[in-house]
Amino acid sequence: MALFLIDHQEDNRLFFDQEVSHHMLRSLRKQTGDLIHAGDGQGTIFTATIESETRQGVEARIVSQEFSPKDWKIHVACSLIKKESRFENFLEKATEIGVHRITPLICERTLKPQLRESRARKIIHSAVQQSFNPYVPILESPIKLEEHLRNMKEVNQERFIATAVDREQEVLLEQQYTGRNPVHILIGPEGDFTPFEVEMAMEAGWIPVSLGKNRLRTETAATMVVQIIKSCFYLKNEMIK
Amino acid sequence: MALFLIDHQEDNRLFFDQEVSHHMLRSLRKQTGDLIHAGDGQGTIFTATIESETRQGVEARIVSQEFSPKDWKIHVACSLIKKESRFENFLEKATEIGVHRITPLICERTLKPQLRESRARKIIHSAVQQSFNPYVPILESPIKLEEHLRNMKEVNQERFIATAVDREQEVLLEQQYTGRNPVHILIGPEGDFTPFEVEMAMEAGWIPVSLGKNRLRTETAATMVVQIIKSCFYLKNEMIK
Repeated sequence: MALFLIDHQEDNRLFFDQEVSHHMLRSLRKQTGDLIHAGDGQGTIFTATIESETRQGVEARIVSQEFSPKDWKIHVACSLIKKESRFENFLEKATEIGVHRITPLICERTLKPQLRESRARKIIHSAVQQSFNPYVPILESPIKLEEHLRNMKEVNQERFIATAVDREQEVLLEQQYTGRNPVHILIGPEGDFTPFEVEMAMEAGWIPVSLGKNRLRTETAATMVVQIIKSCFYLKNEMIK
Repeated sequence: MALFLIDHQEDNRLFFDQEVSHHMLRSLRKQTGDLIHAGDGQGTIFTATIESETRQGVEARIVSQEFSPKDWKIHVACSLIKKESRFENFLEKATEIGVHRITPLICERTLKPQLRESRARKIIHSAVQQSFNPYVPILESPIKLEEHLRNMKEVNQERFIATAVDREQEVLLEQQYTGRNPVHILIGPEGDFTPFEVEMAMEAGWIPVSLGKNRLRTETAATMVVQIIKSCFYLKNEMIK
């Protein structure tokens, strides 16, 4: 079973672009009349019947639809990684788990700050379809840490910076997170943020947290914070109820 | 800063094999007299001084040592994956986070059940050194699910099977896990366990759990359960205190 991301919707009709259509018809051997699952990437999953196949792509008719509200929301701003495949691994895994928004960061110690954005988007789309995720995460363009901190004006957020710079003040993310929404977390490059960067973030309202004693690679840390917030959101809110 | 795994210890002397020695001297340019961090893979991290370099490898003298008790313990038995690099990704990430024991499983729907074990051990060792993990996880040889279930005689375990087969009985792992030790979790192949396999595991005492609505890839699920148990262990035991 697969989920197909739609290109657009017109009334009770769904349209798929050429790439998704090709995958549907050629790789997965779907035919006119078959039932499929489709997503709009914004919370709705459709059951639909394939009606026609044109040069522009597949068209399907909606049979039923279900909307899943996004109950927990995490925005991860993560340093780019010298080995691009490691950053791509984070994109794939974080999408499967359910990250809401991703900002690739350029920090002082970031090496080779590059990201092939269209390739990155393809990885995200493929992970959305693979995992039946009702939401497509938002991928922003790479930005310098300083500029990103200035841009983040919303104050109604739980803000954390994962770092080992300030060992004195270190508390586990699991303990520091209260269970509220949305969450915004900064993940540094291999070699961590500089003390100046941590200070700058702390002044702007980010709270330093630890992810445990083991030193995680950048892409591991960035993926794990998504799972930590997901687990803690469910646990802490169940307890509040 | 890196951690070097020792080959063996004699009194206050540490010995490193040729591969680790080569990495220490050639890649990281360590010299006689330098302070290094070394691990025995069983909980102890040493600070030591490089004393000599022979054909057999580096020898160092212990300056100080610290033992970290293993406070949470998870054994993941995970289906092998057609694309071996995906299973290797799980080995790397789970080691970074702190998995205790790994059993590669051969299930009914496992495709291409192969694992290059010496390569797998290298990946684990490298992740231990990278993450400063005081413990080297135990990697077992691939085994059929049925046989594995028969072998697991210890009953003093929390046992879970991650599956979507029995949607009726589904509870999140975060909610089902009580915070006790050790934990043993079964992760199925792409396409999940068969209903027969789930039944067999349930009869042997494994409780079905869900990892959330999104369908995670095998290697993602296997990595996430390590993080979930880690987070829940800290949260639930802090609350008990």
